[in-house]
Amino acid sequence: MKARIHITLKNGVLDPQGKAVEHALSTLGFGGVENVRQGKYIELELSESDPIKAETLAKEMCEKLLANMVIENYSVEIA
Amino acid sequence: MKARIHITLKNGVLDPQGKAVEHALSTLGFGGVENVRQGKYIELELSESDPIKAETLAKEMCEKLLANMVIENYSVEIA
Repeated sequence: MKARIHITLKNGVLDPQGKAVEHALSTLGFGGVENVRQGKYIELELSESDPIKAETLAKEMCEKLLANMVIENYSVEIA
Repeated sequence: MKARIHITLKNGVLDPQGKAVEHALSTLGFGGVENVRQGKYIELELSESDPIKAETLAKEMCEKLLANMVIENYSVEIA
């Protein structure tokens, strides 16, 4: 099964990378852009063929390695 | 309008970050994980209220700044 994982900063956590992108966009002439937040997107293939088990496994990966649970949220889609 | 942008490496482009994640997962005991690819996920708010124009604008941003078109693909969702 294929897992698609999004890792984003929690609300209220400063996002300097997002701010830099916002500033660069406005410098390039793209006005009216706000609240830019940059996160990570990870795709992986699991040998597990049961979607429920695959989702549990992917969530465990997020909690143990991929996301920093203090400042980040994650979401998992299984396809 | 809110734009959600995914930036991923093109097929065939080496992804050392993905490989590192794959290796780390297997070290942690997560077997059966393959083809880990890491990309970027960017959320932003546009003052443009027409969905078609907002999409065009977001695509332009990807081509001019956010994605490196030589090695990366992008996709835009407007919500």
